Amino acid sequence: MTAVPSVSNSITVRLTLPARATAVSELTGVIEENGGLVTGLDVTASGPDRLRVDVTAAARDSVHADELVEAMRGVHGVEIGKVSDRTFLVHLGGKLKIESKVPIRNRDDLSLIYTPGVARVCMAIAENPDDARRLTIKRNTVAVVTDGTAVLGLGNIGPLGALPVMEGKAALFKRFADIDAFPICLDTQDTEEIIRTVKAIAPVFAGINLEDISAPRAFEIEERLREALDIPVFHDDQHGTAIVTLAALRNALRVVGKELENCRVVLSGAGAAGTAILKLLLKAGARDVVVADALGVVHPDRDDIASGSFPALAWSAEHSNPRRVSGTLKDAVKDADVFIGVSAPNILTGDDIATMAPDSIVFAMANPEPEVDPTAAAQHAAVVATGRSDFANQINNVLVFPGVFRGLLDAASTSIDEDVMLAAAKALAEVVHPDELNAAYIIPSVFHPDVSKVVAAAVKAAVLGTTVEEAESLPSIDAEDAQFIG
Amino acid sequence: MTAVPSVSNSITVRLTLPARATAVSELTGVIEENGGLVTGLDVTASGPDRLRVDVTAAARDSVHADELVEAMRGVHGVEIGKVSDRTFLVHLGGKLKIESKVPIRNRDDLSLIYTPGVARVCMAIAENPDDARRLTIKRNTVAVVTDGTAVLGLGNIGPLGALPVMEGKAALFKRFADIDAFPICLDTQDTEEIIRTVKAIAPVFAGINLEDISAPRAFEIEERLREALDIPVFHDDQHGTAIVTLAALRNALRVVGKELENCRVVLSGAGAAGTAILKLLLKAGARDVVVADALGVVHPDRDDIASGSFPALAWSAEHSNPRRVSGTLKDAVKDADVFIGVSAPNILTGDDIATMAPDSIVFAMANPEPEVDPTAAAQHAAVVATGRSDFANQINNVLVFPGVFRGLLDAASTSIDEDVMLAAAKALAEVVHPDELNAAYIIPSVFHPDVSKVVAAAVKAAVLGTTVEEAESLPSIDAEDAQFIG
Repeated sequence: MTAVPSVSNSITVRLTLPARATAVSELTGVIEENGGLVTGLDVTASGPDRLRVDVTAAARDSVHADELVEAMRGVHGVEIGKVSDRTFLVHLGGKLKIESKVPIRNRDDLSLIYTPGVARVCMAIAENPDDARRLTIKRNTVAVVTDGTAVLGLGNIGPLGALPVMEGKAALFKRFADIDAFPICLDTQDTEEIIRTVKAIAPVFAGINLEDISAPRAFEIEERLREALDIPVFHDDQHGTAIVTLAALRNALRVVGKELENCRVVLSGAGAAGTAILKLLLKAGARDVVVADALGVVHPDRDDIASGSFPALAWSAEHSNPRRVSGTLKDAVKDADVFIGVSAPNILTGDDIATMAPDSIVFAMANPEPEVDPTAAAQHAAVVATGRSDFANQINNVLVFPGVFRGLLDAASTSIDEDVMLAAAKALAEVVHPDELNAAYIIPSVFHPDVSKVVAAAVKAAVLGTTVEEAESLPSIDAEDAQFIG
Repeated sequence: MTAVPSVSNSITVRLTLPARATAVSELTGVIEENGGLVTGLDVTASGPDRLRVDVTAAARDSVHADELVEAMRGVHGVEIGKVSDRTFLVHLGGKLKIESKVPIRNRDDLSLIYTPGVARVCMAIAENPDDARRLTIKRNTVAVVTDGTAVLGLGNIGPLGALPVMEGKAALFKRFADIDAFPICLDTQDTEEIIRTVKAIAPVFAGINLEDISAPRAFEIEERLREALDIPVFHDDQHGTAIVTLAALRNALRVVGKELENCRVVLSGAGAAGTAILKLLLKAGARDVVVADALGVVHPDRDDIASGSFPALAWSAEHSNPRRVSGTLKDAVKDADVFIGVSAPNILTGDDIATMAPDSIVFAMANPEPEVDPTAAAQHAAVVATGRSDFANQINNVLVFPGVFRGLLDAASTSIDEDVMLAAAKALAEVVHPDELNAAYIIPSVFHPDVSKVVAAAVKAAVLGTTVEEAESLPSIDAEDAQFIG
């Protein structure tokens, strides 16, 4: 696949041009001839002889952006000034700010929110720690925790390199679920140290979102924190991915008229995401899941697995592959109804997809390059989805984590289990109405206005053990607050 | 001293009254007869026979607030409805929010601030970690860290009980210095664990403000973190208090026309604040400081000190008391020029102050009850200051920490030393112009618009080793950013 120009590789170039009639069209012409996409053009100053122009163009990548600048330099009489990179510009100073919700205008305000008034609030919480959810930010605050070991597809780039992603995640929490999320980027990659640190900082938070921590450490960190803490611990790379995948799969199966219980599912990837998807698929009723990793199909007799060195892999081997097949991924996909990839780019071809059962479903979610070219896959599969935004059916965790945490926080939940995740997946799937459902629309857009609300309502109900209607009819924590005073 | 009604003990009472001409005045009358202060009164509904009234009254404390409600109940025909406590109301849901600085309106925005665009920013930082101060929130973000062991005068109330204070502190950082501060309330009181945790979470922050950690652990935590981290570590209870005290003392000495070098100073309190004040006084040129604690004057031969069990106390004994006096605090204040108290309520009387040298200076900063009644002290001392807002000369850390951190952040400082603290104290003192200076105005109000700017400029210059003018003429980090792109 050839990359297309993207706004995330946009540049803005300030230049001056001779004031001839064709000058601007010559400029936009060379940009487009060279594969750039002009997305904005302003004449910011003009004189008798020359124009000053700010032109914004999307490039394929930063090398291509440099090529576009060189091409512009070739326009007769042009003088190139400052070249700005939109992505870096938008990151200057970071993407989050912390604001006071209360005014501090005078000494009266000070005495209410700080000393001496605050002392009574402190004592109320010291006497009844549950009141922290009413009288402090704990109610609505989530930690986005990483050690920077598995950031996007970039690998182990450390805590500071990871921070822009965690800030972005926090911004998404706010945008989609009105949650106050704060990035915690850890200067340690030691499992015990990470567990100790998160336990130590937990009081301020109502939930922990683990992010981009490499497997297999991520499993142990998540499990041990779940046991230790009285707030939910969610590992988005595992649970977020599993929930959105299951939601998309439920709808894809509706499109092709198959039942999960009767499907052969092949899952490529046995890391954090793959293992979580396997668990949730089994919880949802799947009976025939074959997992494959870089060494081929996972089964208990495989040397590396039999050695016992990889407990998560051993778990997967034990709980999948009921027909005890072996061989390569390509062997496994033959006659499969569903392929789910959270692994590596270009490991299957259209011809491999052609060997699947009729009306097959292909989720090729490796990013940025999917396991199989989605265009080639679509020639043989009935439904194709990827993790990319430039194809139909983008399977994106942003559909999940804001609503899941909103629901957990609204229910003041102390944990999250697979029943809750299943409820979230069902609710997300049902955002797509029956009359909207088709092979190109199995999952809503991240900007669909209902998504986080519907997921939150389902999660809240699942935590409280009620129906969604019952959960919605309970007094909100704010309504309870109105009773609290006095 | 009798407490006076305070807005921090305000209640709002919703009630109905018969619609007789005198009803409202009867109501306000009973409130005032009972020592309450009516600060607001709204008739929120009216009918032919009855009025609905919301009345807000300041009480001395919560017991007094209850008495006021009972008194209102005695007004003929009144029906008391909901009683709200303003301080608790303002704390509902906490005092901070985290906002995205960037809009997320559409997929283009997403691709800039999150995947795929963010990956290039991550890689830039991974290659050059210094760029984190340009491209992330690190530039402007401070951690307010506590373990909840010494919160206000409330003692060891734990991390959740401490959270309202830390949120208030973060709100003050924003209000007075536009700094993004986040509360870290630790679920551990173990020195090693606290040090480890703060080290682990440090990458996101450009500074650490330690708060309300009990001595002597606070000393070790601060010293070890200073050595370990490449960002400044400030313990407000020590350094903030020392800076504001020195600033006030400089001006008080100008009022009485004495020089610090020639003064006898008595310091009551050898904990975190006292020790820091001693160090900064010595740095500023003081030569005769006598420290006293609950066991009397600190000197090297005192049994508890000679035993070597208290290293901080031993340090104080060694570096103070050059005349090697012993005895009680009351003995020490005789003929002293300056008394500084950061200790306990009502340990001195006006008669003790009368034994001081002529034109004495008394800073009685124990809160809420000072070491000596300031009204009694003022009959003998030339200048009196306290930590309270209801007397002249409130010595308040809010005058210091916002500006100090603003300066440290603007200079991208990796540490803070006593030269910087001295510069901050001098700058704060100089906010009071010579023609404003008098015995009742040795320190500006926390709402004085120049304070944090002046302190920040002095701190920035001290960090950079330049004059204030030179530091101000350097390109700001934002101006540098404009060069950064390209």
